[in-house]
Amino acid sequence: MPRYRVTLEYDGSHFVGWQAQTTGNSVQSTLEKAITAFSGEQVRVHAAGRTDAGVHALAMVAHFDLERPFEIIRVLGALNFYMRESGAIVIDAQEVDPSFHARFSCVRRTYLYRLINRKAPLTLDLGKAWHVIAPLDAEAMHEAAQHLVGHHDFTTFRHAQCQSKSPMKTLDHLSVEREGNEIFFHAFARSFLHHQVRSMVGTLKLVGEGKWSADQVKAALEARDRQALGLNAPPDGLYFVAADY
Amino acid sequence: MPRYRVTLEYDGSHFVGWQAQTTGNSVQSTLEKAITAFSGEQVRVHAAGRTDAGVHALAMVAHFDLERPFEIIRVLGALNFYMRESGAIVIDAQEVDPSFHARFSCVRRTYLYRLINRKAPLTLDLGKAWHVIAPLDAEAMHEAAQHLVGHHDFTTFRHAQCQSKSPMKTLDHLSVEREGNEIFFHAFARSFLHHQVRSMVGTLKLVGEGKWSADQVKAALEARDRQALGLNAPPDGLYFVAADY
Repeated sequence: MPRYRVTLEYDGSHFVGWQAQTTGNSVQSTLEKAITAFSGEQVRVHAAGRTDAGVHALAMVAHFDLERPFEIIRVLGALNFYMRESGAIVIDAQEVDPSFHARFSCVRRTYLYRLINRKAPLTLDLGKAWHVIAPLDAEAMHEAAQHLVGHHDFTTFRHAQCQSKSPMKTLDHLSVEREGNEIFFHAFARSFLHHQVRSMVGTLKLVGEGKWSADQVKAALEARDRQALGLNAPPDGLYFVAADY
Repeated sequence: MPRYRVTLEYDGSHFVGWQAQTTGNSVQSTLEKAITAFSGEQVRVHAAGRTDAGVHALAMVAHFDLERPFEIIRVLGALNFYMRESGAIVIDAQEVDPSFHARFSCVRRTYLYRLINRKAPLTLDLGKAWHVIAPLDAEAMHEAAQHLVGHHDFTTFRHAQCQSKSPMKTLDHLSVEREGNEIFFHAFARSFLHHQVRSMVGTLKLVGEGKWSADQVKAALEARDRQALGLNAPPDGLYFVAADY
């Protein structure tokens, strides 16, 4: 029973999120339908991360099993044929050992968050970045972000419906950099809680505006209380960049 | 009678092009309607370049006159209010001397062309870049492009309906650079013929594929014949980047 690993790129604005929902197109259901369409088999796919509605992916990794073997070039071609115009596409496909699991074998997840800091509304980047008018101090944001790096209880930065058993996570890297009127947040860790990146970005935005100090970010983390959260950033600017195994 | 200079960013996929047409939204008509909406005056706007349908702008410059003076901050705010969700936005507005003309005073126009060179169809960059599957040799393209730099008769690279009096133009710069699977073309000149950038990019793509040699590009230029053109690139990847005065 061959196992296939696929890497997907998608524009999150076309989807209700990764996970199948009762209504709307999810990336998962789009991929599962495409697999069924070419193989005739009903499958369940597993992904490295379950992104929310509006969140994009440059390289999301998923896997699935088929009863019958298919040549990898056929898998790639057929999936992209059935997924055309869906907003999601397979950029790579490989046959992998059955011990590979897109979610459980993943040792590092990398996210990018894009923020555009200017007065004028967005046109070309609409839905692809967070638009913030108030001038932000990216250096102050980067400094404050360092309080979040390390092994912590991230309850404050966790969605109320997060299904992770523990709020303890090790954030390996969180940086904030300005290039012109664009601010990039880079984050990686073995795994993240639901809404963790967006909650961290939203809180750092308050620091950038001068409304919060770096110490307040530290205090919010230590409060271990969702009520202590500054702000949750919108999904538009979030990109799942890479899953490492 | 004050003259205003505005700088616009727009997503070309929302428009039939810069110029007002009998049907569809043009950037020009969108801007003119917004000016009328806040000032009550009927105006004609003039732009540094008249982009085609699907062509984007990061900073297109235009000007218009009003009978009554308005504070510049009001002009900017009112235009963006009336242009919201149109796909075009004003990123800067200034009052300028009546001798300023967005088209005739412009001494340099800069374009960017984005090409994504990979097998997988586009998702996040759909409509924002030219998707080319065949592997392209960007260095060969750059080398061939240098035959086009300088003062030449660009008849071969000119749209049949181009309204320019002369096909003689001086192309100051044309470079081709690869970054990962993306290829960037940068071009600037005092002015361009209609379709000139797209015609040059399309022809260089043939060089990148190995179908044309650099000498064939030179021969096509010297033929001064539209029939000698290799290929016209689609509008999706073209961005009007800057107008200098």
